Amino acid sequence: MTYKNLDKTAAFTKLQKSSPMDVKKALTAERIQKMDIPLGGGMRYNYAAQPVNEDSINILQDLSDELQCTDKYQAVLSGEIMNPGEGRMVLHHLTRMESENPVVFEGKNQRDFYRKQQERIELFAEKIHSGQIKGSTGKKFETVIQIGIGGSDLGPRALYIALRGYAGENLRMEAKFISNVDPDDAAAVLGTTDLETSLFILVSKSGTTQETLANRDLAIQWMKKKNPELDPSKHMIAVTSATSPLAASDDFLDSFYIDDFIGGRYSSTSAVGGAVLTLAFGKEIFSEFLQGAAETDKSALESNIRENAPLMDALIGVYLRNVLGYPMTAILPYSQALMRFPAHLQQLDMESNGKGVNRNGEPLSYKTGPVIFGEPGTNGQHSFYQLLHQGTDIVPLQFIGFRKSQQDVDVTIAGSTNQTKLNANLTAQIAAFANGSENSNPNKNFNGGRPSSLLYGEKLTPGSLGALLAHYENKVMFQGFLWNINSFDQEGVQLGKILTKQILSGSSTDEALKILGAKLGI
Amino acid sequence: MTYKNLDKTAAFTKLQKSSPMDVKKALTAERIQKMDIPLGGGMRYNYAAQPVNEDSINILQDLSDELQCTDKYQAVLSGEIMNPGEGRMVLHHLTRMESENPVVFEGKNQRDFYRKQQERIELFAEKIHSGQIKGSTGKKFETVIQIGIGGSDLGPRALYIALRGYAGENLRMEAKFISNVDPDDAAAVLGTTDLETSLFILVSKSGTTQETLANRDLAIQWMKKKNPELDPSKHMIAVTSATSPLAASDDFLDSFYIDDFIGGRYSSTSAVGGAVLTLAFGKEIFSEFLQGAAETDKSALESNIRENAPLMDALIGVYLRNVLGYPMTAILPYSQALMRFPAHLQQLDMESNGKGVNRNGEPLSYKTGPVIFGEPGTNGQHSFYQLLHQGTDIVPLQFIGFRKSQQDVDVTIAGSTNQTKLNANLTAQIAAFANGSENSNPNKNFNGGRPSSLLYGEKLTPGSLGALLAHYENKVMFQGFLWNINSFDQEGVQLGKILTKQILSGSSTDEALKILGAKLGI
Repeated sequence: MTYKNLDKTAAFTKLQKSSPMDVKKALTAERIQKMDIPLGGGMRYNYAAQPVNEDSINILQDLSDELQCTDKYQAVLSGEIMNPGEGRMVLHHLTRMESENPVVFEGKNQRDFYRKQQERIELFAEKIHSGQIKGSTGKKFETVIQIGIGGSDLGPRALYIALRGYAGENLRMEAKFISNVDPDDAAAVLGTTDLETSLFILVSKSGTTQETLANRDLAIQWMKKKNPELDPSKHMIAVTSATSPLAASDDFLDSFYIDDFIGGRYSSTSAVGGAVLTLAFGKEIFSEFLQGAAETDKSALESNIRENAPLMDALIGVYLRNVLGYPMTAILPYSQALMRFPAHLQQLDMESNGKGVNRNGEPLSYKTGPVIFGEPGTNGQHSFYQLLHQGTDIVPLQFIGFRKSQQDVDVTIAGSTNQTKLNANLTAQIAAFANGSENSNPNKNFNGGRPSSLLYGEKLTPGSLGALLAHYENKVMFQGFLWNINSFDQEGVQLGKILTKQILSGSSTDEALKILGAKLGI
Repeated sequence: MTYKNLDKTAAFTKLQKSSPMDVKKALTAERIQKMDIPLGGGMRYNYAAQPVNEDSINILQDLSDELQCTDKYQAVLSGEIMNPGEGRMVLHHLTRMESENPVVFEGKNQRDFYRKQQERIELFAEKIHSGQIKGSTGKKFETVIQIGIGGSDLGPRALYIALRGYAGENLRMEAKFISNVDPDDAAAVLGTTDLETSLFILVSKSGTTQETLANRDLAIQWMKKKNPELDPSKHMIAVTSATSPLAASDDFLDSFYIDDFIGGRYSSTSAVGGAVLTLAFGKEIFSEFLQGAAETDKSALESNIRENAPLMDALIGVYLRNVLGYPMTAILPYSQALMRFPAHLQQLDMESNGKGVNRNGEPLSYKTGPVIFGEPGTNGQHSFYQLLHQGTDIVPLQFIGFRKSQQDVDVTIAGSTNQTKLNANLTAQIAAFANGSENSNPNKNFNGGRPSSLLYGEKLTPGSLGALLAHYENKVMFQGFLWNINSFDQEGVQLGKILTKQILSGSSTDEALKILGAKLGI
């Protein structure tokens, strides 16, 4: 395998010299029909409104080939050390699909290991749902409360919200989440939940996450105070690594395992998402979700970029970032159920690719991951779209839409349903951003030329949600290959942790920090 | 009053030639003590970690004086036409404070008018809380559901979440919100709420907002279907303008008024926020909130920028944007209760200042409003902070923190409470971003030099929340003066609306749009 920096490739030099497609002329019937790739789970990726044409796409294909994007993905699947900084394999794909060659580590088949944990979760969930396992005061569990932060929170929470309406009356257990070390976060959840019927999931791979342990202790103290008869150890399970201090402890009803080969932000399809989502929705829904992700994972093996949506999306993103110089990307789902999906993608993308050195630790002379933000449409239209349409920076957009709503509740007003209105707005926005509209009043003038893509499907189901998640995970991975960075470590979070410890232990000798801390009551 | 573009001022030219303060050397005890301004409501603004020194602050003072920032604010308060595009006054400050000279429009004292509406709301809320007004099936109202979008949603929702924990057991009514035209949004709320005990607030200044009317009809249909005995007109009030089609209609229990001089994103302190927050929390809490905002409004009159936090924040923001070239700002509250406050500020800032023309409609040759995004800490630390610390772009940061938590629930682990851990993290992050940390392993190296500011106070109360809100409203206003733009219109939202109508009515002849729409089921 060859690893080289983006700016050392022949294709990138060619790309810089190529002419971008004029986005104002991009939205033609022909392009809309043609620039449209299936990605699994019934979802498709349309890139007609992007500043690329056949010529630039050919160069992007060369770039992908030159940097061996799909070969590197194969290396990931085969268990090569693709997280070089930490010397680890990268195996989250194996939580949802078989690899061609089994990955064996210390005698353990990794696919079987992840699969086994999910089966254990399913059996455990059945006992919870049937009432075979009850709370310590003899009541059936009704609510599941996940305590975790970062990757143990954002993904599972976004996915739960995304499928809550889909499940409807088939919801098995309501799920809640506690993440922040701010005690007001736990108080807001614990104060409004019947703890006799609540099952906690403590999620920490290392078993040492400060926020998560602090919230566990707060929850236990709260339980004991509210009801001395409650036995916290009968209301808590752990999702952690087999070697963590939390593993196989008497403090828990049961423990389910992950390992070092699945990064937090890539862990939604492992036990980190599996436990809470299986408890909330049952095993069938979680299984369909994994199936959707597996379909997209398979589609991402295709070396022809015109048939590989995550790869095409990654390449266009690099073109927008490194040739056209756009530092941000907005994620705009036209689905209220996806309201926290942008927050998950913000972590996935920014923590993976917000890096200043290449995979060998050498400083880079080009830009890497963009800032990601977003809110659902049509809400955003009444908020920040003003800047997107008429502001002084161009922000590339990624729309997400579905033909049908999740819940079968709608009303026809003035000849159209709300769902039709929603999608008419989405269609109109893509056109408005791309085409603009000339007006002699400059305040009412729209320059257009603002690129977007559209991920779309029939309905937000477990399968299409899995496909969406895997699309972005694979996109981010491919962009890491293109930028020649390690997308699977996160050294940038360490310094803050070290300084926090120094402040809490009183070992910091920095006078300025003491004065600053005093302003915050430390 | 003199209006001129930023790049035509003497001070800006001087500013461009000045040397920025090295952020790596900025965090000294002396600067932390000195660069700290009270802003009302018990809150303070600390800008020690910003790339400014005494010299550059003197130039920023010159810039403020040259562009008459506080005079223009006085003009706002005096009822001059400060929204020139729409030919309107800008009067949201009068919802919370008297102006020196009364603003009278068509014989109506505007301060009295806004005050009167709030008094009417208070009387109405008392009747709801006491059970004097009951639902149509004779039950006491327990829940208030706001139907609105954009400014009628983001601010009131963020403020409700911010004060929910503070109110604790004194909460009068639970509040919920429906905004998106996606029917799944309404379904998620309506399907989980007892409608017999629910009071809807329909909020639309014009009375014609597509999403809001669509959601009203959906809610009415749902009510009739679930319980034919329910009379929707006895479960709904309106907040609208006196001239709107919704005003004084038999479809509502009562109507409360706003007018054209309060833009949606500035309407949280008007009846738009007043109705839902007074119903949820009672009049005292809403009154304390207004009082906090009024204190900050008064502090913003000070022409000495070293004593005017919103103005200093605005000037530093322009320095970061137009001299140092940073296109984004992250808002990072270390308070879970402020979890939706960044989303409100995203609208406030980006819709106000995401403009490409000056107040006379002339295209600008410099950048205006930045992209705003953010999530609460410590959650963000486990998510996108990787990019903020080690990514290839510098993103200026605005931290918010409080010495105490809202709810008196905490636990001491390893010698510190969770609240202390929270603030130790906040202190550590400010230092880590500013100072960085050298490491011979480039992957573990932190360049530092990343600027931030800190808004802080004792506790998140109604008063400090009002001050925070007014700080940002006034900051955004001052930046509009500095960029010479109209921060009070939003022409950028119009084109999408026009195209949506064409698509829904079938009058669009654009073949490409039809093909795109067909992919989305239209």
